Amino acid sequence: MNLLLLRRDELDRALPAADPRARHLRTVLRRAIGDDFDLGVIDGPRGKGRVTALPEDGSVAFAATLSAEPPPLAPLQLVIGLPRPQTARKILQECTALGVGALHFVATGRAEPGYAQSTLWSSGEWREHLVEGAQQAFCTRLPAVTSGRPLAAVLADLHADGLRLALDNYEAAAGLAELALPAAPAAAGLALGPERGWDAGDRAALRAAGFTLVHLGPRVLRLETAAVAAVAILKARLGWL
Amino acid sequence: MNLLLLRRDELDRALPAADPRARHLRTVLRRAIGDDFDLGVIDGPRGKGRVTALPEDGSVAFAATLSAEPPPLAPLQLVIGLPRPQTARKILQECTALGVGALHFVATGRAEPGYAQSTLWSSGEWREHLVEGAQQAFCTRLPAVTSGRPLAAVLADLHADGLRLALDNYEAAAGLAELALPAAPAAAGLALGPERGWDAGDRAALRAAGFTLVHLGPRVLRLETAAVAAVAILKARLGWL
Repeated sequence: MNLLLLRRDELDRALPAADPRARHLRTVLRRAIGDDFDLGVIDGPRGKGRVTALPEDGSVAFAATLSAEPPPLAPLQLVIGLPRPQTARKILQECTALGVGALHFVATGRAEPGYAQSTLWSSGEWREHLVEGAQQAFCTRLPAVTSGRPLAAVLADLHADGLRLALDNYEAAAGLAELALPAAPAAAGLALGPERGWDAGDRAALRAAGFTLVHLGPRVLRLETAAVAAVAILKARLGWL
Repeated sequence: MNLLLLRRDELDRALPAADPRARHLRTVLRRAIGDDFDLGVIDGPRGKGRVTALPEDGSVAFAATLSAEPPPLAPLQLVIGLPRPQTARKILQECTALGVGALHFVATGRAEPGYAQSTLWSSGEWREHLVEGAQQAFCTRLPAVTSGRPLAAVLADLHADGLRLALDNYEAAAGLAELALPAAPAAAGLALGPERGWDAGDRAALRAAGFTLVHLGPRVLRLETAAVAAVAILKARLGWL
């Protein structure tokens, strides 16, 4: 928790004792009255908090001074075959920390229907992983997230004139590291198959939507490792890091 | 477990019932007598196994046919400030899957001395994470690993004429994505600080050993995310993916 993120309506009241951010300020950062800490408003400015009171009930009262908004997120939209919830949690957190603009977890031909029904999605837990990733990265901006929509529907909604790449271990002709890329695309869409891979229908939909199939070399990576590696390489190649 | 890895001395006997690989063949891959599976000898050739018997005691008897050895690992040595064991486990698994040649977990100025005493290192558990990463990546080769040696001692042992880069969020002048790199270095060393960062003494040792300090942009990443991102970008830029 490098940056303590709050909703705007939380700025003018104390953090309750049970709030993990209050506990973090008291027991990890060990802030005393008068001490400063880094805070940010979700999807708003960063700034400083100053502890104004540490009541015996365990709450933390503070005053906020807001400064500049962080730069926008990279115009990079990920399209990911819906994975098991534990994998989705890692991807939500790590790809938010890496600053992607959107994460779409889609239903594909080989999707496991149960994954879309996970409480990760229905309870709103997914949003906690975004906040955690943003706090880690010292950023207030959260990516847009959808889950469970069909692949074709998400592809139809992507930025119209962006670069479009899909990772595929089986039918890719070029490596993500070697493929010639446009100098300054307006946006980029990067698709990663589910753990069981794309099926023929998924590949046809991706190709029809203008996606080029690329690979990360002969080594087979877990989805969460491939996501971080591919986002890092693509952002590096486009000057978006 | 895309590739089932065995020691050479395990090739000529059945896998016992309690062995996770026996359970994997029976309950995940659901192999019957006569069915094939992918296997490899640790640091040796890949090949095929054929199930020859499925005794009632739960063991799995098989016959192996070995073929070619996989290519060598990338001549990329990681030097990482010793992290908490849970972070080290992820790095061991993911960086093995990514095919790094060596992982040195070093004592740095801000090291937490307790981390070197973890049972992760003393029990040999660390090796399990290498095997898991190699099985995932469909590779038989495991990186060399050391833990707890002083930073300076590890730096003195690195490949003499390789590229040398250290990630640093505070004093780096160039980005890993933008820095001009030699066309085909014989080897590369990539250093990542511990979770609390390098101290002045660490930086002096790195600079004295010819390391250039580089960054991954303004976003602050967890050590395990930074490791995957930096290895991916460096391997991509050097044509080593």
